Amino acid sequence: MIRASICTIGDEILIGQITDTNSTQISKALGSIGIRTDRIVSIADRQEDILQTLDQELKNHDIVLTTGGLGPTKDDITKEALAKLTSSKGMYLHEGQFDVMSRILHSRGLDVLDINKAQAMVPDSAEVIVNQLGTAPVMVFRLSKELYPHQPVLYSMPGVPFETMAALKDVMKDIRQHCHIQEILHRNIMTYGMAESALSELLEPWEDSLPSDMHLAYLPNPLTGVKLRLSIYNADEQKDNIRLEEETKRLESILGNLMYSDKEDTLESAIGHVLSSSGQTLSAAESCTGGEIAHLITTVPGSSAYFLGSVTSYAVPVKEKVLGVPAEVILDHGVVSAEVAAAMAEGVRKLTGSDWSVATTGFAGPGGGDEREPEGTVWVAVASAAGTVTHRFEYHLDRKHNIQRFAASALHLLLQQIRKI
Amino acid sequence: MIRASICTIGDEILIGQITDTNSTQISKALGSIGIRTDRIVSIADRQEDILQTLDQELKNHDIVLTTGGLGPTKDDITKEALAKLTSSKGMYLHEGQFDVMSRILHSRGLDVLDINKAQAMVPDSAEVIVNQLGTAPVMVFRLSKELYPHQPVLYSMPGVPFETMAALKDVMKDIRQHCHIQEILHRNIMTYGMAESALSELLEPWEDSLPSDMHLAYLPNPLTGVKLRLSIYNADEQKDNIRLEEETKRLESILGNLMYSDKEDTLESAIGHVLSSSGQTLSAAESCTGGEIAHLITTVPGSSAYFLGSVTSYAVPVKEKVLGVPAEVILDHGVVSAEVAAAMAEGVRKLTGSDWSVATTGFAGPGGGDEREPEGTVWVAVASAAGTVTHRFEYHLDRKHNIQRFAASALHLLLQQIRKI
Repeated sequence: MIRASICTIGDEILIGQITDTNSTQISKALGSIGIRTDRIVSIADRQEDILQTLDQELKNHDIVLTTGGLGPTKDDITKEALAKLTSSKGMYLHEGQFDVMSRILHSRGLDVLDINKAQAMVPDSAEVIVNQLGTAPVMVFRLSKELYPHQPVLYSMPGVPFETMAALKDVMKDIRQHCHIQEILHRNIMTYGMAESALSELLEPWEDSLPSDMHLAYLPNPLTGVKLRLSIYNADEQKDNIRLEEETKRLESILGNLMYSDKEDTLESAIGHVLSSSGQTLSAAESCTGGEIAHLITTVPGSSAYFLGSVTSYAVPVKEKVLGVPAEVILDHGVVSAEVAAAMAEGVRKLTGSDWSVATTGFAGPGGGDEREPEGTVWVAVASAAGTVTHRFEYHLDRKHNIQRFAASALHLLLQQIRKI
Repeated sequence: MIRASICTIGDEILIGQITDTNSTQISKALGSIGIRTDRIVSIADRQEDILQTLDQELKNHDIVLTTGGLGPTKDDITKEALAKLTSSKGMYLHEGQFDVMSRILHSRGLDVLDINKAQAMVPDSAEVIVNQLGTAPVMVFRLSKELYPHQPVLYSMPGVPFETMAALKDVMKDIRQHCHIQEILHRNIMTYGMAESALSELLEPWEDSLPSDMHLAYLPNPLTGVKLRLSIYNADEQKDNIRLEEETKRLESILGNLMYSDKEDTLESAIGHVLSSSGQTLSAAESCTGGEIAHLITTVPGSSAYFLGSVTSYAVPVKEKVLGVPAEVILDHGVVSAEVAAAMAEGVRKLTGSDWSVATTGFAGPGGGDEREPEGTVWVAVASAAGTVTHRFEYHLDRKHNIQRFAASALHLLLQQIRKI
């Protein structure tokens, strides 16, 4: 098995300024072609650290991928380290990258500054893949037998996430061309509504019966539930796909309606599939979730075909005036109640003329809560021509995570309802 | 200077299932008391890797903080490694943690399963800080001189982010009690509207004139702009605070209205300060940003005092019917236009009765764009009793990042306007 290490260079991650999302995407891409990421290391923009860490990672891995350390203010440190490590004899200006950089900067109305120009300088030990989206090139170093007997490959990528993602495509292409990639097969099964530990107890007998070459992973996520991933490494595509199919069916029969998709999905994309294919439309009315539901729904490309819009009614008068929630319903039942959720859902459905609507009203905290409902409670309503369904959920997390769970619970209730029709 | 290493244990990060947000928060907390995070390492749930990596990190650092590897299905691997590494003589059930765990599971209507009970087992070489929010305890290992001459401390924390954050508070308290913490002083200056490279050129003469013990960092973020952080390590609180104050003033005079705050702020929190203190209210009408603006505004605790609500008008009929945008305005100027943005802002302001409103209409991509405006364009409008201001922005990113920039541009225009009054 090919073993990889990802190294992130730059102080931004070590001081907690930014979160390392690049490594997430890189390890996912590597995993999809059966390359195991053994380590992810973040180090500072210090030449000594870069040299020592990369040397160590090159010794222990077949592929080392670095991101960052190539920004306009600090790229010299990283590039000098890379040059030393790969026994480069000098640096030169890469014309192809310089042309792209000039074009990009001019299109933004900017001049090519000296610090930009320095970004197109590369060690002569590097093969260059021109970065079409940014100023720093992708560099590929194929290490000689003299330097590292197992001849590892080092890829240096820019650190700005959208540039890294573009570079990753080119790097994956290079890896496929140069490495012997084994076949790896996956099946993803999406579940919602049961915690990882309970799920693992439920599935234990089945899991114990799995053939030894099949691996099950539990991948929990607050917004999409627990994803189950069934994998076979070194697979025979035809034969093993059938075997995975059979196990997926056994799993389906155990999970029942805990399962909401047999492919890599989110609640909002699963909702999108149903609505797109049936030509139905959706709207939302949000109180405590403050736009999170609309935001999730509209992250799905093509959502404009079924999502008409939403109202975030943070203030009570907006609930009354825009959504038409009667003042006495709020007075009688409290603002966080089944009745208000239902009136909000029905109100926004009428307002937008959508087939379906979903509404939330709750206390996300900190503080809040009234004599009827505590902090962490949400009432969700789903309305359609068939009537209105309401459900209460309660979580004990902080504001941000309560809002996430509220939104996911609402989307899950919606998905269950639209699938019934 | 005390040097720290953060180690994340668990396959989830290495296969790209989750992004490591814990390390971001931990390194930020350490940095706030002058502890430098030198490395962040992610390794798999394999005992050999855990042993080897932790041994290495303990050798090179004063403090090693681990997160994860303590979930119900795999905690035995990590705990055995920790026991071996710290010369533990055996494991025992920690009654305090077991009680908390039982209470939590019962409050969720769950039974205490055997795999949960195993989570309360700890090596006898550990001091335990009871985790009040979850099932896995925080373990503190103070390594003896015989094992590691410089006597480092190893903190093992749970990996579920909200449990990690709670554990981090206790760990920071322990670090403050046991380590000699040097004084470190920071000033944060928030800027918006100029890229890092241009900003660094603008500030170069001033930066070159800084005293050698003052450090400047550029911390760009698509949602909040470039944050500038001015730091003094080993500071004398009284004297150096005055020096930082003076440099901040010099910086202010160079930056002019590129600067929007002289403390750690976001655009939405800066907007919150102005509105809260002046008792004014806000609403939003979003098309292409699909709820992102409402979501950002409502992440600010206390936003319910000034944010009345918003309308996400994805479909044209919602723009017309709910927001009252005249059909002929859309027909004459196109849906992405100054006129439609203005009508949306004025419409939602009227609908909610807010003092201020902000509206967006644009093409986030992929695809979209019409004969008037290309993909990546957004028109923003800000309306108030003083009139309506519109502005056009253009970005060339993917859907997700276009939406982020659209929202940030809208919030920045809003902030500029509400500060003028």
